[in-house]
Amino acid sequence: MAVTEAERRAMDRALELAVRGPRGVNPQVGAVILSPAGDIIAEGWHQGAGTPHAEVAALSALAPGAARGATAVVTLEPCNHTGRTGPCALALIEAGISRVVYALDDPGEVSGGGAARLRAAGVQVDAGERADAAHELIADWLSAQRLGRPHVTVKWAQSLDGRAAAADGSSQWITGADARADVHRRRAAADAIVVGTGTVLADDPSLTARDGDALHAHQPVPVVIGARATPTGAAVRRHPHEPLFYDTRDLMAVLADMQARGIQTVFVEGGPTLASAFIAAGLADRVLAYVAPVLLGGPRLAITDIGVPSIDAARRLVIDEWIPLGPDLLAVAHPTASEPHSEGVR
Amino acid sequence: MAVTEAERRAMDRALELAVRGPRGVNPQVGAVILSPAGDIIAEGWHQGAGTPHAEVAALSALAPGAARGATAVVTLEPCNHTGRTGPCALALIEAGISRVVYALDDPGEVSGGGAARLRAAGVQVDAGERADAAHELIADWLSAQRLGRPHVTVKWAQSLDGRAAAADGSSQWITGADARADVHRRRAAADAIVVGTGTVLADDPSLTARDGDALHAHQPVPVVIGARATPTGAAVRRHPHEPLFYDTRDLMAVLADMQARGIQTVFVEGGPTLASAFIAAGLADRVLAYVAPVLLGGPRLAITDIGVPSIDAARRLVIDEWIPLGPDLLAVAHPTASEPHSEGVR
Repeated sequence: MAVTEAERRAMDRALELAVRGPRGVNPQVGAVILSPAGDIIAEGWHQGAGTPHAEVAALSALAPGAARGATAVVTLEPCNHTGRTGPCALALIEAGISRVVYALDDPGEVSGGGAARLRAAGVQVDAGERADAAHELIADWLSAQRLGRPHVTVKWAQSLDGRAAAADGSSQWITGADARADVHRRRAAADAIVVGTGTVLADDPSLTARDGDALHAHQPVPVVIGARATPTGAAVRRHPHEPLFYDTRDLMAVLADMQARGIQTVFVEGGPTLASAFIAAGLADRVLAYVAPVLLGGPRLAITDIGVPSIDAARRLVIDEWIPLGPDLLAVAHPTASEPHSEGVR
Repeated sequence: MAVTEAERRAMDRALELAVRGPRGVNPQVGAVILSPAGDIIAEGWHQGAGTPHAEVAALSALAPGAARGATAVVTLEPCNHTGRTGPCALALIEAGISRVVYALDDPGEVSGGGAARLRAAGVQVDAGERADAAHELIADWLSAQRLGRPHVTVKWAQSLDGRAAAADGSSQWITGADARADVHRRRAAADAIVVGTGTVLADDPSLTARDGDALHAHQPVPVVIGARATPTGAAVRRHPHEPLFYDTRDLMAVLADMQARGIQTVFVEGGPTLASAFIAAGLADRVLAYVAPVLLGGPRLAITDIGVPSIDAARRLVIDEWIPLGPDLLAVAHPTASEPHSEGVR
């Protein structure tokens, strides 16, 4: 049957509820239970790994038998997978739900299949309502599932001739105010911001996302990679979030640990050695090069060595956008090589 | 009095005639003599240094006395300077010309003043007719006069991260077909194309301007700078023009010699050492950076050292245009520092 007006409104509500949950290892999901008359009788959202899924959270607010003949409206296909919690599809069937409206198919090979299970049990299922909005909500989570690690953006600022600084190391400011404000907006959209110890020792960055002097509402988790110690008085230690420190050059291990902590998107800010290491390892899903109209020459390169012996092995990029920012130009690009695919697990 | 329709047509004709003369040490100038009735009775153009100026060339086609009461229509203000030839203003006065219509004021401090001299002798003078077209015709010459040397464009192709080649030196092709075609069009518009001996020995370039396999109608003079010898079998020795060889690092001396040979615009194509030397010496009036969406890393830099010790000394550019060329992007820029001014001498 067609999705009713009450179900549509319930889906909008479910999308609102979903956002209350944390970005993390699991996707953000919201659920609403409607009585046969179309009234909301329960709401739920997923509050993070190890807690009930949104559908179960909503059902648990009802007295036994109260969901019989009711409709569940959910932002993601109910799972069919027993993890730390049981399959939601089964919970809905057992609660006597007679109809399920959901937005987005579950892409996980393990967790998917909930809709089929529901239908097999005689539950009426309607999929695709507000699928775009539901997709946007968990796009970063889906991307991390596909990659099997957080999505990595590698950002640097450079002179037109590819330098990060002048010969004596001075670099304030290569790029202009518009470019710097753009960096802060993009920091604020990331779950984590990553630098090497060299950058911490040289520049003592605060790694906060700022709008002028004010902090953006969302702050990325600061991450420092490298063997050298971060001084006790370093600005990064005063960040709103406790920094993560990794004393290793194994970037995959670092990313795996970050993913286990629920970090979906990573913003690598340098310096040149770390940025180049991510590119060399094929771990740059997106690059952001802020190019300033200036020539510097000399030895301070924005990108050092990335393991390209000959032109055939060049790291070719697809430019998604050239964005003018005041006098500067931002290249937003991704590698031409296709991304590795991995199983989605919810 | 206002410029007549016959004078307007005569100016168009004078502009056509001017182009017959060579680009060189002197500007291209055309002249037409009109009878009092408005008929063309003589034409002339300047055929190069040491030959008569356009006005004198036109007058010399007439019998003595035939120019009495006539009008001279000239693309540039008649000169007031005795060089290898006498002042044109005086020649016009002595021939009995009663009216002069010219397009562009002579900017030279020595050669200028012709209009005032004509007026003082009772000749009616009208200036400014088709001034824009006359300016465009000799823009490169004017630029070289202002600079006191040929106008220099420094061109290079680079990866986004500023490399001219991969670690092993391979570089075909960093940029795409559209970018390469653009280079050839710009080569064809230059008077000379300059490379270092390193580029000759490494790449054996032909230094011709080509459209596919065909040569462009105009070919720049090939110029090789450096101490090492150019092999007898080098492609540049088969260029339509005899190459110029300079065994010196004194770029000002090289440019002075080129200017004395009538070269007004120079296209410096590299390699990195030569391009960087021109930039370091403040001799790059325009830079063209063809940026390919590729990362290379490694030691083969498009720009090497340009004498910038700290960020305060950065060579700041004004970007005139960012031009997309297929997947590549061309930055057309000029230095923020103002150009040196020098006397104009015609």
